[in-house]
Amino acid sequence: MKKFYQDFKLGVLGGGQLGRMLIQANTNFNVYTSVIDPDPNAPCKTIASEFQVGSITDYDTVYNFGKTVDLLTIEIENVNIEALEQLEKEGLTVYPQPSVIKIIKDKRIQKQFYKDNNIPTADFVLTDNKEAIKENIDFLPAFNKVGTGGYDGGGVQRLESEDDLDKAFEAPSLLEKLINFDREISVVAARNAKGEVKVFPTVECVFDPRYNLVDYLIAPSSLAQEIQDEAEKIATDVINAFGIVGLLAVEMFVTKEGEVLVNEVAPRPHNSGHQTINANYTSQYEQHLRAILNLPLGGTDIAIPSAMVNLLGDDSHTGMAIYEGLDDVLAKEGVNLFLYGKKFTKPHRKMGHITIVNKDVNKLKETVEFVKKTIKVIS
Amino acid sequence: MKKFYQDFKLGVLGGGQLGRMLIQANTNFNVYTSVIDPDPNAPCKTIASEFQVGSITDYDTVYNFGKTVDLLTIEIENVNIEALEQLEKEGLTVYPQPSVIKIIKDKRIQKQFYKDNNIPTADFVLTDNKEAIKENIDFLPAFNKVGTGGYDGGGVQRLESEDDLDKAFEAPSLLEKLINFDREISVVAARNAKGEVKVFPTVECVFDPRYNLVDYLIAPSSLAQEIQDEAEKIATDVINAFGIVGLLAVEMFVTKEGEVLVNEVAPRPHNSGHQTINANYTSQYEQHLRAILNLPLGGTDIAIPSAMVNLLGDDSHTGMAIYEGLDDVLAKEGVNLFLYGKKFTKPHRKMGHITIVNKDVNKLKETVEFVKKTIKVIS
Repeated sequence: MKKFYQDFKLGVLGGGQLGRMLIQANTNFNVYTSVIDPDPNAPCKTIASEFQVGSITDYDTVYNFGKTVDLLTIEIENVNIEALEQLEKEGLTVYPQPSVIKIIKDKRIQKQFYKDNNIPTADFVLTDNKEAIKENIDFLPAFNKVGTGGYDGGGVQRLESEDDLDKAFEAPSLLEKLINFDREISVVAARNAKGEVKVFPTVECVFDPRYNLVDYLIAPSSLAQEIQDEAEKIATDVINAFGIVGLLAVEMFVTKEGEVLVNEVAPRPHNSGHQTINANYTSQYEQHLRAILNLPLGGTDIAIPSAMVNLLGDDSHTGMAIYEGLDDVLAKEGVNLFLYGKKFTKPHRKMGHITIVNKDVNKLKETVEFVKKTIKVIS
Repeated sequence: MKKFYQDFKLGVLGGGQLGRMLIQANTNFNVYTSVIDPDPNAPCKTIASEFQVGSITDYDTVYNFGKTVDLLTIEIENVNIEALEQLEKEGLTVYPQPSVIKIIKDKRIQKQFYKDNNIPTADFVLTDNKEAIKENIDFLPAFNKVGTGGYDGGGVQRLESEDDLDKAFEAPSLLEKLINFDREISVVAARNAKGEVKVFPTVECVFDPRYNLVDYLIAPSSLAQEIQDEAEKIATDVINAFGIVGLLAVEMFVTKEGEVLVNEVAPRPHNSGHQTINANYTSQYEQHLRAILNLPLGGTDIAIPSAMVNLLGDDSHTGMAIYEGLDDVLAKEGVNLFLYGKKFTKPHRKMGHITIVNKDVNKLKETVEFVKKTIKVIS
């Protein structure tokens, strides 16, 4: 590989905020980044070295794009896998590997993978249609999740009993036992082609029940150290089982009994790793780059306690975005703003995030509460 | 001002590494950044929202560029001031103000400014030519500094005695008393249009005597807290005296007697503030942006101890840059790499820097020594 990295071109499928923050990291390594996204105003648009409009689920578009770059990566899983497989066959390095994306993209195959690899996860049954769900009525209450196509809270239904059967998916899906969980946590792991693995410390997620999106997260977690160690060990097991090159964000539940179960994973930088930019020795974005370039992975220690609040479009606003309360928020110690360059807001669109750092965890939490009640993305 | 910041365009004169890191910060605030630089391959080239090739010392070029933006700033002082003054007269906001850049660009006027504002600084006499220096022979040993045009160690000569007169400048310059200093330190200050001022904690600079460039710097400084407080107070006095909007990096000497004297200032992000990206609550780049947008300034506290090592082109190499030893350096805990996107190296060209963070200051220093002896920019 041509290193540090003149005339080396990294291709990224997807031009959203994850790609945007990846480009900021790439810049520091002299990596020329070419991005493709269907949205002509995607977040990467103004800062990519090259930006191209095109469908990343279309075979020909992905294949042709891949032929113009030296290494190909993704910032979203919903890409054309067949094109990636063909590019790989023709000698292009594609990280994460198409074979891994394929497993992860389909929640059914992903769950089966955990079972086959002795990764702790909630019990489940695979169902092909409503009829199959009806046959497993004893398995309820459960989540019904579609195999492919569900993102950010879509494609998931909670089924309490037979009465909810009309909400069930008439599609290949799975039923997953409800977990009586105490916390949701996430561990972002990284692995390079040499097989070196590093994990970021456990972060604790607080979800907004309205949107099923992370409301805020905090690191370090307040969980007992042994549970955090267990979560980090599981994340290591999972990334080794996949043999992925790149990042793997492992979302987990901690049950009331202290058991740690894998919920799902994402083979790329993740919402739960944003705060590493400001708060850890290395950011998840730089870590992803190091991994796919087969460089030594960076230290993952926490430099300072942090919290991350997503900036979601307000429920009742659609149109040109206005960030109400931002001046007040910026006046608070330790507030770091990340806007994603999206002109238009709509209800619960991810418009940006705020990372708050503070040596004093109590002050950190006070600032989180202030930020949450002060800022609004309206139009 | 159109805030957060759709359709708002920030212009930057100069497309070097300081501009490059400023753009990375601007991105997080949705600021569209238009850059002009004479070098078609300047570090900002691949990440600026818009990049234009042109002379930033040429009146018409700067004037015409200024007419296309909503707010104009600089990342280097060597710009056409007359054009900035005209733009300001026509209503464009230019930060830092042209009147301030004018004072700072000329070391003679700058020194006189300190004297007039009771800012502690080394004694000096203004000299118009060699003849005038000869008349002040009693003032030697002294540094002879040209008023304008000297950067990064150029434009400065040390004159011990009459024997050195041939090295003296035949140009408007000044003689400055040698300071028997113990340390060189720097405080980066910021001021917004509301008059809010914040200073970053004192950083301690270790200079490489070969190039008269910073070899590495470390924060927090090991100086007594009262000396750091004094330095930060002086930086506050200086920025208030200038009334600048934006960043002001204040380089100072600490004498063996513990006196703090201002050496010189730079009205922009500064080499001595690089480490704030990884190690402080807010980075100097974001702070500059907050200041010129008249936003509340960010907290400046140190989140974690850090050191910064410049990556300079090796003495004996000119050509396409190769970064020898970089893999070994990246394997060390807490190493953050910043390459500046420069294709070609030449002796002591600034090619990048490395910021090292570590909670343990001893480990931090060990890593600095390892980095310094391991990495080489060759061709």
